[in-house]
Amino acid sequence: MHVFLPDGKQLDLQQGATALDAARAIGPRLAQDALAATANGDLVDLMTPLPDGARITLITKKNPGEAAAVFRHSLGHVMSQAVGEFYRAKGHPADAVKRGVGPSIENGWYQDFDLPEPLREEDLPEIERIMREILSRNLDFSRREVSKAEALAQFGGDPYKAELIRELPDDEPITFYTQGDYTDLCRGPHFPRTGALPGAFKLMSTSGAYWRGNEKNPILQRIYGVAFATQKELDEYLHRLEEAKKRDHRKLGRELELFVIDPLVGKGLPMWLPNGTILREELTRFLREQQFARGYQGVVTPNIGNLELYKTSGHYQNYSDSNFSPITVDDEQYMLKPMNCPHHVRIYASKPRSYRDLPVRLAEFGTVYRYEQSGELNGLTRVRGFTQDDAHLFCRPDQLKAEFLNVLDLTVLVLRTFGMNDVRFRVGTRDPENTKYVGAEDNWNAAERQIIEAVEEVGLPYSIEPGDAAFYGPKLDFVVRDVLGREWQLGTIQVDYNLPERFDISYVGEDGADHRPIMIHRAPFGSLERFVGILIEHYGGDFPLWLAPRQVAIIPIADRHNEYAYALEAELRAAGLRTEVDDSSNRMNAKVRAAELSKIPVMLIVGDKEQEGRQVSVRERTPEGHKERKGVAFDDLKAELLERYRTRA
Amino acid sequence: MHVFLPDGKQLDLQQGATALDAARAIGPRLAQDALAATANGDLVDLMTPLPDGARITLITKKNPGEAAAVFRHSLGHVMSQAVGEFYRAKGHPADAVKRGVGPSIENGWYQDFDLPEPLREEDLPEIERIMREILSRNLDFSRREVSKAEALAQFGGDPYKAELIRELPDDEPITFYTQGDYTDLCRGPHFPRTGALPGAFKLMSTSGAYWRGNEKNPILQRIYGVAFATQKELDEYLHRLEEAKKRDHRKLGRELELFVIDPLVGKGLPMWLPNGTILREELTRFLREQQFARGYQGVVTPNIGNLELYKTSGHYQNYSDSNFSPITVDDEQYMLKPMNCPHHVRIYASKPRSYRDLPVRLAEFGTVYRYEQSGELNGLTRVRGFTQDDAHLFCRPDQLKAEFLNVLDLTVLVLRTFGMNDVRFRVGTRDPENTKYVGAEDNWNAAERQIIEAVEEVGLPYSIEPGDAAFYGPKLDFVVRDVLGREWQLGTIQVDYNLPERFDISYVGEDGADHRPIMIHRAPFGSLERFVGILIEHYGGDFPLWLAPRQVAIIPIADRHNEYAYALEAELRAAGLRTEVDDSSNRMNAKVRAAELSKIPVMLIVGDKEQEGRQVSVRERTPEGHKERKGVAFDDLKAELLERYRTRA
Repeated sequence: MHVFLPDGKQLDLQQGATALDAARAIGPRLAQDALAATANGDLVDLMTPLPDGARITLITKKNPGEAAAVFRHSLGHVMSQAVGEFYRAKGHPADAVKRGVGPSIENGWYQDFDLPEPLREEDLPEIERIMREILSRNLDFSRREVSKAEALAQFGGDPYKAELIRELPDDEPITFYTQGDYTDLCRGPHFPRTGALPGAFKLMSTSGAYWRGNEKNPILQRIYGVAFATQKELDEYLHRLEEAKKRDHRKLGRELELFVIDPLVGKGLPMWLPNGTILREELTRFLREQQFARGYQGVVTPNIGNLELYKTSGHYQNYSDSNFSPITVDDEQYMLKPMNCPHHVRIYASKPRSYRDLPVRLAEFGTVYRYEQSGELNGLTRVRGFTQDDAHLFCRPDQLKAEFLNVLDLTVLVLRTFGMNDVRFRVGTRDPENTKYVGAEDNWNAAERQIIEAVEEVGLPYSIEPGDAAFYGPKLDFVVRDVLGREWQLGTIQVDYNLPERFDISYVGEDGADHRPIMIHRAPFGSLERFVGILIEHYGGDFPLWLAPRQVAIIPIADRHNEYAYALEAELRAAGLRTEVDDSSNRMNAKVRAAELSKIPVMLIVGDKEQEGRQVSVRERTPEGHKERKGVAFDDLKAELLERYRTRA
Repeated sequence: MHVFLPDGKQLDLQQGATALDAARAIGPRLAQDALAATANGDLVDLMTPLPDGARITLITKKNPGEAAAVFRHSLGHVMSQAVGEFYRAKGHPADAVKRGVGPSIENGWYQDFDLPEPLREEDLPEIERIMREILSRNLDFSRREVSKAEALAQFGGDPYKAELIRELPDDEPITFYTQGDYTDLCRGPHFPRTGALPGAFKLMSTSGAYWRGNEKNPILQRIYGVAFATQKELDEYLHRLEEAKKRDHRKLGRELELFVIDPLVGKGLPMWLPNGTILREELTRFLREQQFARGYQGVVTPNIGNLELYKTSGHYQNYSDSNFSPITVDDEQYMLKPMNCPHHVRIYASKPRSYRDLPVRLAEFGTVYRYEQSGELNGLTRVRGFTQDDAHLFCRPDQLKAEFLNVLDLTVLVLRTFGMNDVRFRVGTRDPENTKYVGAEDNWNAAERQIIEAVEEVGLPYSIEPGDAAFYGPKLDFVVRDVLGREWQLGTIQVDYNLPERFDISYVGEDGADHRPIMIHRAPFGSLERFVGILIEHYGGDFPLWLAPRQVAIIPIADRHNEYAYALEAELRAAGLRTEVDDSSNRMNAKVRAAELSKIPVMLIVGDKEQEGRQVSVRERTPEGHKERKGVAFDDLKAELLERYRTRA
């Protein structure tokens, strides 16, 4: 057999050779340094036979980060071994610790356990200590292929493993990995030895998790760990985590009085408090203005619809898991609206349309309801009711590219307004080997081509993801990186050949005949709830002037300045700026601190001198701290603030 | 016995004397002219014994309009007689026509019939002709008291009458009224003779109506008539009706593309088309601005709520007829939100409140859902889902009057902005003989006094309606007369002692103890749907500039003026004015006609001269027709339009 190296060189090897054999064939030094490899782009370990003809690369201690998923998984096994030793040291028999699944995940791994007594958070440092000891033992990882019968012989007493083994196909090899006295059923890959694993890891938390995610099964205890190739990366990660905790939108939402979730009102149904409502209204006003300028038309549709509507659209049949139960009204059935599209299609169909009327761009801040399991609910980012900044564009095939450009332009402008400049696109196209797609082949080809042309014109990074298209049309996602380096999928543009067909909508073409319009779904924010949740964390609650629920605090230095402060407040409020006077009996410094805690971006401090000259002292919050200006003419400042508000600077 | 005349004079009469006897006692001329009377404020006829000690007034042919309800009811009997003669003339036996109920109603009457063959609309003139003939026969109306047995003997063969008679109490006299050969079971009152009835009547329409309004009963045929004391009043009424038909919001809603109701989406669930959405958005923007200036805070709450919430509030138990059926979610039940109040109470309760924080004014454009029978649904004015311009004010008892003044001021401003200057208030107070009311006596007394003081301060007409208070607090309604003279109840302010109690909400008083806040519900528009429905009819679709969905039409005289027109369009649109160029190939006059039909308030006509001088010719729609100005500098006109838009002039 042979494999190919990155430089294209062919390497001849014996049948069943592993990446370690390949490394040895190149040189003894590489064989010593090698930690893992890739074969045809997939991570593999040094112990697994390579496929014949594979393109391989070797990963060594110079670039261990490229095999992060491998060492995270190996550290999972080490943790599993350590937990066993921990309970043996407490006097439990070796088989008292049973294990569920334990995959590597983003930044780390987890492992589920059925334990003889629960592990407490306080026990994690001891587990970590045992893990570091296992690393220092420098145990080899070894791989062994076994039959199903052998596998059952080894793990038959463990109900979890046995269940997994029984479900494996009979004709494929099952593999065991062993380090020291610890063996687990595992597909791999793993590092060659525990001594090669990075010490930059940390056990984070434990939680309960149903066996196989099914709430009818027993609850296992899950332990999470994180690991990086270097201590620096781990430290940065923990810092970001700390920062993310401080910015947690649920915490800031409570502190800044943005929203509240009240079980008596309903799970997953946030109520927007006055401050949060201002955020929503500023966002909708902003988008509405931009949409007006781009030829969108607003519509408003009800939050429920006849079940027949959703049967026609297919939502009833295809999304039954997320539909709420029907409401019986006389002899009809209604359902909470899961999507706005069917309503908009019916609005399109409410009058005859000509090719000259297209594109028709119907926009709605439409509140929809989708069932989520209560365990999945999370603040604003995972809810059961949310408002989409939805629009549906109905266009001719020859208008698709222009409409895509229109939406791309709008969405990039929207994201940049929030300082989200690190944007990339993911274009989802057909899987060439699948035939599930509705719509004519020609249309698909043209649409995919036009989308890619449009994306090219915008000039931002993009990737094409074959197979990521929906069955009803190609799509484009916006992926944004926030200040903490986290990626969010924001905004989708989705071409749809299906709904126009199901609702049999048409326009009269230049030829006088009926034609089917193409429909595009798009939502730059996605949902107001999720977007505000992300914005809270993105800004850490320090909203820019135009978004800040409380924009200006006026701080009179002494009581005798209150009247002047009220006069300025009245002027700013009349001009539309959300302004308040702190006329409490606190001292000035305490008032400044209070405004800081409320994250009010602009403070105007007024004393004798200011009052005399119709001036203010300005203290502004900035990302770096604050900026002060003394003796600013009030009228100039007002004009400046209004201009910043207007331009959303 | 004796009665009192309007001037206070006492008139001594024989026991059982009627108003005719009283008239005779005054003078023979009056006895001849008298048509009806009032006794203690209630309309009575000349044939019915007066109660001893009654204050009476006599109604004569000089002021027959004061007895309109009487002559309308008498005309109903005349119609009933005429229908009998109509069918006898067609060869049916006299008992083939059976009769349901036939009351007088606003402007007229109706009578239900079970007919041997259906009456067609085309037959109405013939019925009218027979009625006029009966009037010319000048038949006396006579009244006779009978026992239940006699009544059944007369009407036993008529299943409808027999059913009614059987339900009458045994111990009260039953009365028959007879004119000519026509006798009906009737409580009266009636005019003395058919010749005294006004000829200013008209049969309007027929429709089906279930016997006793129950859909399980047979359908009867209902005939509607209208009548007035004078032909002039009838003509005016018919003219207003004609005008109202032209202004029917369902008709204009379709023509101006404001909204659509689509059975596939749902009955009673309007979808707002782009033009209607602009109306909604302008209205909400207007009210939001006014509310911001008055210290309101916006909130947003979900369209569903846990059933426990509505059980706590009492809405579940007390409004079960209008609640939609519950939605089961896991082990909980939810319901479409019928009112926003419980949600707002929970927002109030989401943090501790001090006396200094009050009043708290929470406002929401909240979409609620209430069941209505499908037969009751009507365009935008009777729907199953609607958006309230809702707010709840939580205040201390000593703040009630100020809060009322704040709301009165806002509501009057709102109504005047729409040219609704004919406003009166109805203050609903307790029924002194009822004890159903919740809340302390002292609070009620203070609240009723403060409301009346506030209303007095505003200086608009008002009436006090004892017994019109809700069980949970006194209220105030706004009644507005529109340009067609129709009265609409718009806006309510409702004091509520009940919900604060049920949800056990409080604030910490100056004394450090917990106190119960008072809650005020208020909605100046009532609902956006109903208000827009009324506005459409009020304006006849001719909305003022700020509301007009399409504000400015630019009309190029020839193709060579299109570029200039587009440039002006871009400028006006950038300034926020809804502007469009009619670049069709039509001639100028046709373009003007098209803009007229679309009720676009401002047309800018541009030709060579305008283009040269950056001018426009302006054609504006006015209530009287239109107004033209030539050679207006475009920049001046733009500034003028923006100023009108901004000030909602």
